[in-house]
Amino acid sequence: MAWNETAHREAFPIFKHQPVIYLDHAATSQRPDCVLEAERAFYEKQNANPLRGLYELAVEATEAYEEARRTVRQWIHAALPEEIIFTRNATESLNLAAYSYGRHFLKEGDEIVVSILEHHSNLLPWQMAAEETGAKLVFLECEPDGSIPPERMEEAFSERTKLVAVTHVSNVLGSTLPVEEIVRRAHARSAVVVLDAAQSVAHMPVDVTKLDVDFMAFSGHKMMGPMGIGVLYGKKKWLEMMPPFLRGGEMIDSVSRTGAVFAPIPHKFEAGTVHAAGAVGLAAAIRFLQSVGWETIQEREHRLTAYALEEMKKIPGIRVLGSEKAENHCGILSFTVDGVHPHDVASILDADHIAVRAGHHCAQPLLDYLKVSSAARASLAFYNTEEEIRHFLDCLKQIRRKMGYVE
Amino acid sequence: MAWNETAHREAFPIFKHQPVIYLDHAATSQRPDCVLEAERAFYEKQNANPLRGLYELAVEATEAYEEARRTVRQWIHAALPEEIIFTRNATESLNLAAYSYGRHFLKEGDEIVVSILEHHSNLLPWQMAAEETGAKLVFLECEPDGSIPPERMEEAFSERTKLVAVTHVSNVLGSTLPVEEIVRRAHARSAVVVLDAAQSVAHMPVDVTKLDVDFMAFSGHKMMGPMGIGVLYGKKKWLEMMPPFLRGGEMIDSVSRTGAVFAPIPHKFEAGTVHAAGAVGLAAAIRFLQSVGWETIQEREHRLTAYALEEMKKIPGIRVLGSEKAENHCGILSFTVDGVHPHDVASILDADHIAVRAGHHCAQPLLDYLKVSSAARASLAFYNTEEEIRHFLDCLKQIRRKMGYVE
Repeated sequence: MAWNETAHREAFPIFKHQPVIYLDHAATSQRPDCVLEAERAFYEKQNANPLRGLYELAVEATEAYEEARRTVRQWIHAALPEEIIFTRNATESLNLAAYSYGRHFLKEGDEIVVSILEHHSNLLPWQMAAEETGAKLVFLECEPDGSIPPERMEEAFSERTKLVAVTHVSNVLGSTLPVEEIVRRAHARSAVVVLDAAQSVAHMPVDVTKLDVDFMAFSGHKMMGPMGIGVLYGKKKWLEMMPPFLRGGEMIDSVSRTGAVFAPIPHKFEAGTVHAAGAVGLAAAIRFLQSVGWETIQEREHRLTAYALEEMKKIPGIRVLGSEKAENHCGILSFTVDGVHPHDVASILDADHIAVRAGHHCAQPLLDYLKVSSAARASLAFYNTEEEIRHFLDCLKQIRRKMGYVE
Repeated sequence: MAWNETAHREAFPIFKHQPVIYLDHAATSQRPDCVLEAERAFYEKQNANPLRGLYELAVEATEAYEEARRTVRQWIHAALPEEIIFTRNATESLNLAAYSYGRHFLKEGDEIVVSILEHHSNLLPWQMAAEETGAKLVFLECEPDGSIPPERMEEAFSERTKLVAVTHVSNVLGSTLPVEEIVRRAHARSAVVVLDAAQSVAHMPVDVTKLDVDFMAFSGHKMMGPMGIGVLYGKKKWLEMMPPFLRGGEMIDSVSRTGAVFAPIPHKFEAGTVHAAGAVGLAAAIRFLQSVGWETIQEREHRLTAYALEEMKKIPGIRVLGSEKAENHCGILSFTVDGVHPHDVASILDADHIAVRAGHHCAQPLLDYLKVSSAARASLAFYNTEEEIRHFLDCLKQIRRKMGYVE
């Protein structure tokens, strides 16, 4: 589909209702109408409890749910549909990996490598796993621009490295981590790699087979899908070895008073009634992204990011965190304004209907390293417009003056 | 609102699209249009990541989410909104209780009492907690009609009882457990009570303050709310003592490389991006149920259940599990047909567009006790009609003949 700014903007109903310039995509995206329609159509035409009923409607509900799983499989290039576990969000996916793989396959003396760029959701579960197993947490450090040179890897990896948990794209700096190199080093030590792809899946093609990661987590809501649905990809060999995490209905073959025989994957990890409508909505989001196409998405996001970054560099008192180069930002521009608290930055922009986030972005260790206690962050999607960025930049230029500074 | 059969049926769009006689409410309910509209309106008008942003849209999203929490609080008569934890479903709620309370506050020698009527989702998490802590699982037995006489409680409770996990209403027999008596006995031993209210909340007023349970779990999707949203109620004193379960964004006050200070409840237990649209939809479902009113809901469900039960008793070869009395069924009629496998029963009914479930209903220990390996189950909601029940009964009368039996 060729880029059609009007059609693509109109796909998002919120912009008809809210006069917002939405630049908080790293927190959550907006949803196109086709996603909302897909969820609704499921409830209106196919709703039953999937995987359970023998009647026609339940068979249709099951088929819709499993078709969504196949859509995700194909989209991230997983080998098998049963390697796709539906969860609530990326956070639950990472906790599943930490509770079920981490707690059971790590032991005292083992080392867990996490990068200093991690979102708390890919740090706290490993702090928990380390605490419960006696394994040690080791940090993979980065440079101020978010890059990770080989010597940092040398320092972090050892013969005791058993698990490496890294983000694909930093939610603060927008930098893309050298995942293939990390995987190569991890696998050379027989360590597994857990990738947090929450910030990458909506912005670049992600191929788990090519990356060869062992686990990968992402959320629907950051990629134009519904809230309440996420994915854990895991290699079949690991998922089959792992004990279940949540326990309840539909994840068993048989149950007695004293124990249970668990169902095969993926159902072993999907206890209770699944969020089928959410999975169907996520599949619709994938089809939407496919219809726009990576070329359009990446070309537009890069152009908007480059424009914003270059202009921000010219504004006195503004400092953009991370790389000097737009291609290393994946649409994410975190920044500080000299003498103005990021909360005030966000409030001033909000008065002009511009939505940016301010705070520690759930990445306090990284902010500590960068020596900023908080920052404002603008994060783009392909459906943002140049006019929106221009307005954002115009407002940014006024901030210090509005706070009483004279340039 | 007075009962208006036409208006209430028309509230459920699925019946315009599917010619189904839906009798599988114990698995999942259908959704009225107002619930679907509420979810959609959230995405179209208020969508942002709640609890995180400082801008107007995020404030609105947060307010919508917290208003849903207050609606749930008021509906189940909890003392405080922070006693309401939003989860994915009842299964996750029960696992949260087992992982966070069970694993940390039970120890070897303690006893966990579970009733033999439990759905697997309120049994398997306690098997896990018992296994990990060395506590012992003790079964509270029932009579064939689902009742639990005091002598069964005497047998199950001991001075070592530390936690009691029971369902409010059996998803197989429809019997209501004597929760107040169980709570009295548990609290006399300082044991906590975890109530699985998945099968009761849509069918009777549930008052956690009056019941005095320590924890209570239920799902949105069984009470006309969306999929992917559930609730764990917990008394503040326990929730505050418990360590977090899932870890990630928005459940912390501060994070360092080596540890974290967790946020106050309820956020401590809501890691990652919340399913705000689902919570808003659940609140709409509550308002819908309130607009119909308990009197109407209970009067209609009782009348339909009594009609079905009395007629089923007259059909040769049909045996309804549980009590002889309609008031002990909470709209749930599980049954067997002599000489016909429950799967065939469901298939034959499905050919007439009647949706009932067949299987072990995620309650294998109960079915073992009842000496049936599987059963068919019809489960009603107030919006079923007499005509639907009549059609169901007519089809039921034909089943044995269709399978070649001559009466």
